[in-house]
Amino acid sequence: MNPVVQKLRKIIAEKKSNLCVAADFTKSSAVLELAEKVGDKICILKTHIDILDDFTSEFPTKLREIADRKNFLIFEDRKFADIGNTVSLQFGGGIFRIAEWADFVNAHSIVGDGIVAGLRKVNKNSGLILLAQMTSDGNLFDENYALRTVELAKSNSDFVVGFIGSSDRPEILAKIRAAAGEDFLILTPGIKLSTESDGLGQTYNSPEKAIQSGADVIIVGRGIYENSDPAAEAEKYRAAGWAARN
Amino acid sequence: MNPVVQKLRKIIAEKKSNLCVAADFTKSSAVLELAEKVGDKICILKTHIDILDDFTSEFPTKLREIADRKNFLIFEDRKFADIGNTVSLQFGGGIFRIAEWADFVNAHSIVGDGIVAGLRKVNKNSGLILLAQMTSDGNLFDENYALRTVELAKSNSDFVVGFIGSSDRPEILAKIRAAAGEDFLILTPGIKLSTESDGLGQTYNSPEKAIQSGADVIIVGRGIYENSDPAAEAEKYRAAGWAARN
Repeated sequence: MNPVVQKLRKIIAEKKSNLCVAADFTKSSAVLELAEKVGDKICILKTHIDILDDFTSEFPTKLREIADRKNFLIFEDRKFADIGNTVSLQFGGGIFRIAEWADFVNAHSIVGDGIVAGLRKVNKNSGLILLAQMTSDGNLFDENYALRTVELAKSNSDFVVGFIGSSDRPEILAKIRAAAGEDFLILTPGIKLSTESDGLGQTYNSPEKAIQSGADVIIVGRGIYENSDPAAEAEKYRAAGWAARN
Repeated sequence: MNPVVQKLRKIIAEKKSNLCVAADFTKSSAVLELAEKVGDKICILKTHIDILDDFTSEFPTKLREIADRKNFLIFEDRKFADIGNTVSLQFGGGIFRIAEWADFVNAHSIVGDGIVAGLRKVNKNSGLILLAQMTSDGNLFDENYALRTVELAKSNSDFVVGFIGSSDRPEILAKIRAAAGEDFLILTPGIKLSTESDGLGQTYNSPEKAIQSGADVIIVGRGIYENSDPAAEAEKYRAAGWAARN
């Protein structure tokens, strides 16, 4: 098993949490504050480093310190989607230097083998997650695409550790799980206790539905960070996600 | 016709150039230097802002100045690939503020309508290009995907101005052109005078093949920027691309 998956499974068991919180803020301080507030309740914090309008190289160091102290992993949701040569530079370099600090990163499989090869070339300790499904309206993901993504993962299982799946189409998620086996992680975004849409094509599902469809980790964004008490709300999601699993 | 397409068509005619040069450098100064050297020969300069390891907010300003002086447009090859809410923040904000300075940006259509809506929400003057094909080995793009991408473009023709297509599969490129009509631009990457592979899954085609397959603009990267005399090499590609068209 990939060391980062081993680490995650240990955290999930210790903290009884399969909850990943998305920190979709445009200020570094807001991400760090959320990490402090929900850190005890989560197994992963998901970031979008390129939406921070005040990014400095100190930010990943500070976030890493909170992650280590509060025992969660960091997932940079970069959704790499370019040819191998370009993603090498985007992952390993630039001002973000994602390979230095992210436990997980993700990529679109549509590009083919080259994207995995390009990312692996500069990888240090991250595990790669492939997008097998998305939760947005009218997306072009289908069963065939999901299963080809699983094939790509299996032929690169030293580095690819899991998938983004969606409980919008639980029948496809179940096939992903069946094809991938239990060693790969499945993370499902678009989770809310109250399900609705955001008017920009994002739809939501409940923690129970996601876990019952085969997810290992539920990703919650606005349901937690838009709440006036994110820590209390995170605890609700943690409990719901954990109860659904057992 | 979208103003940015109108501007591009004018530049192509005036400079007799359908050449876009990719500036895949990790130093700002190298990009600016290349822009000065090849600026007179090109209609578009393609950037990857997030591979610069010394990015500062002065960089886009300097590049914009060269672009205006040398009469070319700027295409930030970001390949947006996330849900609407996230791409709004990635395009409009972050430290790169791409919407402030890019004439063209691109996105993967796999996400569905939401990605176009999210980008449009924060767009200022950019035209959006959708990836209908890629040139990488083993990619999951097929004819059905390409044609669904054209549909997405046609239902958003106020903002979507063209496609990335590939002359690797000229029969699909021809169908993209037939379905899209002449108003949309087709840009084809992976062009080299001597065709070969890069060992990371990128394959190459000639300017002639690309233009004859229906491309409006050829995108050349390593064939020019790795040459010891990029200006002279750009002139060769400009001439080859222009001759193929006429």
